[in-house]
Amino acid sequence: MGALEQQMFDMGKAARAAAIILGQSPRALKDRALLQAACAIRRDAEIILIANDQDVRAAKERGSSGAMLDRLVLNPARLESIAQGLELVAGLDDPVGQVSAHWQRPNGLDFTRIRVPLGVIGIIFESRPNVTVDAGALCLKSGNAAILRGGSEARATNDALYACLVTGLVDAGLPASAIQLVPTDDRAAVGAMLAGLDGAIDVIVPRGGKSLVARVQAEARVPVLAHLDGNCHVYVHSAADPAQAMAITLNAKLRRTGVCGAAETVLFDMGFDAGPVIRALLDQGCAVRGCSVIQKLDARVTAAKDTDWDTEFLDAIIAAKLVGNLDEAIAHISTHGSHHTDAIVTQDHAAAERFLREVDSAIVLHNASTQFADGAEFGFGAEIGIATGRLHARGPVGLEQLTTFKYQVRGTGQVRP
Amino acid sequence: MGALEQQMFDMGKAARAAAIILGQSPRALKDRALLQAACAIRRDAEIILIANDQDVRAAKERGSSGAMLDRLVLNPARLESIAQGLELVAGLDDPVGQVSAHWQRPNGLDFTRIRVPLGVIGIIFESRPNVTVDAGALCLKSGNAAILRGGSEARATNDALYACLVTGLVDAGLPASAIQLVPTDDRAAVGAMLAGLDGAIDVIVPRGGKSLVARVQAEARVPVLAHLDGNCHVYVHSAADPAQAMAITLNAKLRRTGVCGAAETVLFDMGFDAGPVIRALLDQGCAVRGCSVIQKLDARVTAAKDTDWDTEFLDAIIAAKLVGNLDEAIAHISTHGSHHTDAIVTQDHAAAERFLREVDSAIVLHNASTQFADGAEFGFGAEIGIATGRLHARGPVGLEQLTTFKYQVRGTGQVRP
Repeated sequence: MGALEQQMFDMGKAARAAAIILGQSPRALKDRALLQAACAIRRDAEIILIANDQDVRAAKERGSSGAMLDRLVLNPARLESIAQGLELVAGLDDPVGQVSAHWQRPNGLDFTRIRVPLGVIGIIFESRPNVTVDAGALCLKSGNAAILRGGSEARATNDALYACLVTGLVDAGLPASAIQLVPTDDRAAVGAMLAGLDGAIDVIVPRGGKSLVARVQAEARVPVLAHLDGNCHVYVHSAADPAQAMAITLNAKLRRTGVCGAAETVLFDMGFDAGPVIRALLDQGCAVRGCSVIQKLDARVTAAKDTDWDTEFLDAIIAAKLVGNLDEAIAHISTHGSHHTDAIVTQDHAAAERFLREVDSAIVLHNASTQFADGAEFGFGAEIGIATGRLHARGPVGLEQLTTFKYQVRGTGQVRP
Repeated sequence: MGALEQQMFDMGKAARAAAIILGQSPRALKDRALLQAACAIRRDAEIILIANDQDVRAAKERGSSGAMLDRLVLNPARLESIAQGLELVAGLDDPVGQVSAHWQRPNGLDFTRIRVPLGVIGIIFESRPNVTVDAGALCLKSGNAAILRGGSEARATNDALYACLVTGLVDAGLPASAIQLVPTDDRAAVGAMLAGLDGAIDVIVPRGGKSLVARVQAEARVPVLAHLDGNCHVYVHSAADPAQAMAITLNAKLRRTGVCGAAETVLFDMGFDAGPVIRALLDQGCAVRGCSVIQKLDARVTAAKDTDWDTEFLDAIIAAKLVGNLDEAIAHISTHGSHHTDAIVTQDHAAAERFLREVDSAIVLHNASTQFADGAEFGFGAEIGIATGRLHARGPVGLEQLTTFKYQVRGTGQVRP
């Protein structure tokens, strides 16, 4: 076994040992670790910002782009928001030990299904250094040990932020190895994590762009909670309220174009006058790629290519299509969607209920913006991401989704006949 | 693409199309298909038994063993039990559409989490032909399409039973491809299923011996619901009621030795007199492999090897060990167990609660036999197996565990600020 592989295996073993302790730790200790980490971040703000400046300067020297730099850079306001995020997670209910079902059988056996941590969670992420703290905090609160693998471009920042998490853990008397940061930028470390570190990792959560998620999904030998695409739709039904259709479509597309819940295609029923919405999108600087009918509505609409219906633009671009009816809309979403988040706008109750029932996406909305696809908006407090797989967790992955369960069966000497 | 691969891909496409219809089908249609299949089995009993006789004779000619033949052979009583199994599943509640959570947010958005089918389930099994019907029925009732791959040794029996399932589907007006039986014994078909048929299979359930499950877990590129080992423990605490310890240990080991919930190791606290239980096991024909202390209790006890603590005997053999206290018992189970099912026998409430909390198994029991590890005993009605993975489903996999969920969000025009 090579030195790197041995180092990763040792991290896995330490994580597993820490997970056993964390799984039995009371809420007060976990919250203390989170709050003390927030204190440490505020106390060490200058150190962290200096480290971040070092990362940012190195990135600039390598010629990194504006969006990439924006993801990397911290400032006092962003750092305070990271610290507040720790306090927010400390304030959330502890999912561990919650009873999700309880029943008795005629033979007197008493069954309780209670939430327990998943175990060890591997997080693989790119340039956003806040993920170090956010993901570590959510894993800790849900009783899971975390192995974090951040991007090399944020190495100094991640190290500085990670030191604050360790301060919190140690102060609370919890094992420092409850949250570990992979100390090498060697890409082989990612491969070792994806192989599961000899059974030490229970689930992998990738956080980053599509190429990262695609690699993780293709190579992981352990379960992955992730979404590859957020190709979200707004379907404006013939019975839509025009003002709602306008507000929801503009918000779903343009509130933030870079989030996975942003709408990428708008489908207009042929019984609805699409013109005003199309013109408003264009007026607000959104490029519209339309089918032949939509193109006729405004000269600024360009022709949609076949691939546009399958594209997550993550930008101020929307594909727009006329459909004949609800069936066609559902069929289009079924063919081109990514089972993430899709919305219908209509005043027709029956049409809305059919859409909510038949569209097979993690989140289906009626008369609301797709941009509500977010754990905080669901009331989960915080999320580690959104999952579009079908098993375990669909939609926002919050504290509850970072747990599994076990059955406790209490008897009085029952044997099975 | 080869002919076999094309055939398997076509099955996947047909299954996906059927899954969309099944997922929207009302309970009455699914139940009708199940009940009509039961009728067909009773009507075609003679045909099925002749086909089975053909399989059994061929197996004998190949020199198959007694246990393997017993798994393969059907008789009128076993066939009637298969038909009754269909009626039982028809009588169970439909999990699809059940609301598992419902809440509102301050902005007026109304959230409902409802159960929806997983989609397409691939079942890979060995010689028991009843799995064709049992697994097909559970998938159908939970709204999932099924692709069944049975053992070649049961080919004629499976074909005959499968014809009855198709009769039921057609009679109910459901697509015949809702349940498909792989028509080839080519082992490459299994490989194609494990690769997911280009996204057409959502989850694989292996049913059979350890080598089958191990292959599926190692090679599958889609999620697997399964357990590899059922190395279950009974821990007899110092404060155990002697009569309960006797009854539970004997039942856990000997009621049926071939089931995954059978106990394989009994741990005796040094404060408990293990002699009577050990002698009763031996008197009932169970081989006991003991640690040095247990060996002194009866001359018939043989010395346990290190590997015995990790072995699922699935036979009238038990490993027996003295432990110093509850901590040692929990540590032993943590080291050697398979996270399946473990029990403590004690009158000490605090010790029992610690065991139930700290032993990290899908099922933990207090004063009850490990042989209750069974979906029917949990009140699930029926199960497709027991899962020891940590994600999605742990423990018995019944109808509810064969579903996932989606969030339906009902608004009145909300956009995200």
